[in-house]
Amino acid sequence: MASEKPIVVVTCTAPVNIAVVKYWGKRDEELILPINSSLSVTLHQDQLKTTTTAAISRDFTEDRIWLNGREEDMGHPRLQACLREIRRLARKRRSDGHEDPLPLSLSYKVHVASENNFPTAAGLASSAAGYACLAYTLARVYGVDSDLSEVARRGSGSACRSLYGGFVEWQMGERPDGKDSVACQVAPESHWPELRVLILVVSAERKPMGSTAGMQTSVETSALLKLTGWPSALQFRAEALVPPRMAEMTRCIRERNFQAFGQLTMKDSNQFHATCLDTFPPISYLSDTSRRIIQLVHRFNAHHGQTKVAYTFDAGPNAVVFTLDDTVAEFVAAVRHSFPPESNGDKFLKGLPVEPVLLSDELKAVLGMDPVPGSIRYIIATQVGPGPQVLDDPGAHLLGPDGLPKPAA
Amino acid sequence: MASEKPIVVVTCTAPVNIAVVKYWGKRDEELILPINSSLSVTLHQDQLKTTTTAAISRDFTEDRIWLNGREEDMGHPRLQACLREIRRLARKRRSDGHEDPLPLSLSYKVHVASENNFPTAAGLASSAAGYACLAYTLARVYGVDSDLSEVARRGSGSACRSLYGGFVEWQMGERPDGKDSVACQVAPESHWPELRVLILVVSAERKPMGSTAGMQTSVETSALLKLTGWPSALQFRAEALVPPRMAEMTRCIRERNFQAFGQLTMKDSNQFHATCLDTFPPISYLSDTSRRIIQLVHRFNAHHGQTKVAYTFDAGPNAVVFTLDDTVAEFVAAVRHSFPPESNGDKFLKGLPVEPVLLSDELKAVLGMDPVPGSIRYIIATQVGPGPQVLDDPGAHLLGPDGLPKPAA
Repeated sequence: MASEKPIVVVTCTAPVNIAVVKYWGKRDEELILPINSSLSVTLHQDQLKTTTTAAISRDFTEDRIWLNGREEDMGHPRLQACLREIRRLARKRRSDGHEDPLPLSLSYKVHVASENNFPTAAGLASSAAGYACLAYTLARVYGVDSDLSEVARRGSGSACRSLYGGFVEWQMGERPDGKDSVACQVAPESHWPELRVLILVVSAERKPMGSTAGMQTSVETSALLKLTGWPSALQFRAEALVPPRMAEMTRCIRERNFQAFGQLTMKDSNQFHATCLDTFPPISYLSDTSRRIIQLVHRFNAHHGQTKVAYTFDAGPNAVVFTLDDTVAEFVAAVRHSFPPESNGDKFLKGLPVEPVLLSDELKAVLGMDPVPGSIRYIIATQVGPGPQVLDDPGAHLLGPDGLPKPAA
Repeated sequence: MASEKPIVVVTCTAPVNIAVVKYWGKRDEELILPINSSLSVTLHQDQLKTTTTAAISRDFTEDRIWLNGREEDMGHPRLQACLREIRRLARKRRSDGHEDPLPLSLSYKVHVASENNFPTAAGLASSAAGYACLAYTLARVYGVDSDLSEVARRGSGSACRSLYGGFVEWQMGERPDGKDSVACQVAPESHWPELRVLILVVSAERKPMGSTAGMQTSVETSALLKLTGWPSALQFRAEALVPPRMAEMTRCIRERNFQAFGQLTMKDSNQFHATCLDTFPPISYLSDTSRRIIQLVHRFNAHHGQTKVAYTFDAGPNAVVFTLDDTVAEFVAAVRHSFPPESNGDKFLKGLPVEPVLLSDELKAVLGMDPVPGSIRYIIATQVGPGPQVLDDPGAHLLGPDGLPKPAA
């Protein structure tokens, strides 16, 4: 048995994922078990990632966490659930007789620091990347190599989908204990190299309701309707619509059929937002700008006579647009035409480089919208990417040898 | 048999109606047969009405129509369907041996002039009042006294609900020929005297799609889904949700239970818009202002701990708000607080008089919205009203003795 080290530090990164078959509604709030399966695309960490450092040491007197440089309360029930779960898995591994590569006492306290390379205000699912990264990093530091779906899921349901690269399915499972509610890869990131993702960040509008509270309202409304003997749209979606959609989406991805993939992605996004609107009180995440983006996409596709771009929206007004590499430049030009940048023309496009192109007069005529300057703040161009990574460079650690956050560079 | 008169002129008025269980989707485009029953409240003609004059004379050489002072094409298929239907009913009446009070030849041509006392731009269902008034006026001029549901329905489905005052049900019927798809009164206008209606006219935003085209998209999407073997939200709504809602809404009205009436009205409006969003391409009639109104209503009700106001939206961003007479003044003050009039402070409120009142600080805190000046243009305060009326005053005729529109006064 190796000798104990005074401190063990591990740093990992994890990606953001965007659902193309949406998760909405929990059947178990505590275990975070969904009422339907979902499917997502993992985005590339070159553009969007969470970095997390975890350290354990006998010298630490309590579990502590810093998010984006600010210390937060480690007592948060979801953080506690992740920690408890990872320590349980580590104990189980030891009791199963596996040799521990980092044999530190499980009673040692942990320090965690986590940062996103994108503003939380971008309204991207930062909690998914965050909890996936937490689960992955804690697993490395505690020497756990079993499936981490449950650890990540207990933090944020969709976090389990950020544990893999490429195209990822979160199977809802059937067991009451959630052991079969796990994420698995449908296809790796190399499977569809032409696929591109554009995140259209809409100018600051207040988010009317967080997704946890929103989802709860939906399920409660549904329960209310159940009590009165009426079927609910949420149940209808979960039971009748999602199962065939999951199969169809998997087939679209396997066959790299963009038209079918795009149409189904848009339909599922629309239906998710329809379900939100059908809860009581209703929830609206789409803003007027979101609706103009929807119109732009449909007109762009109508002009081409085929589905060349597809939108999806989560619990906020920002659009995530899928397209293929040969269409990115023209679509970005169309966005610039309909939503001219107000002042940051040079910083309007972030991420992967996109060639500037001129729009044809025909396409301009089809788009035919009064330009709305400034209503899209910027675009992030990215692509499908890999799952969580371990960073070997000690310079990447967010915690210093004393176990406290390094001063910002 | 009475002698023929050279010209017969009749002028009638008809009301606007607002559905509280929405009509959306036709099972027969030609006969305008709906896929679900619907229920509406008839608004008072003191505030909103269509006036129509019809004249028949042996001297007229063709059927002609003037809408709001402008001659329109009488060849429009829906106008033709109404005319054909009323002449068929008149012939049937004669062949049944009834004496004709106005025994003019059915082959005589008709002139029609029609006007609304409210701007079409208000986005109110002017076609419902318009076709109900046309059906009612033509029936008087041709001496038809049978049920006019079919005549009005052929013009615009919801027009059949404007044939009665008070609370009106349009029974979808089952017959393929539509003979049982008729409107009937659930309760007269005198039934619930405390009920008030506020129309919040939202500042000009382009209407993305007319309701006829929109409805067709919905049904087509539905059909597409049917082909792939997937159930559609539209069918789900029509088959599973609307039948119990119709019964529940009728009970709420009979019992004058405002809380239940209001909640069900809001839920059905939300679900109608959810169904629109779930069509492909999606249809969004609600604007950011509509959504702020929804939020205002829910916060106002939360403050009072009960449903004191209820919104409903048709195929546009304007809100129709139901409340009781004791709540009108406070709610109007809340609207003024959240949507301060931009320049027309004195013309902001039209229709029934409303006492100005001060909002409590508690309510202001609950509303807590950043005021958005100018996004509501004006409010029309009205109440439940009677069905179509015949105007006996010859001065009310919109057509002169020559059968042509009178010059504007």
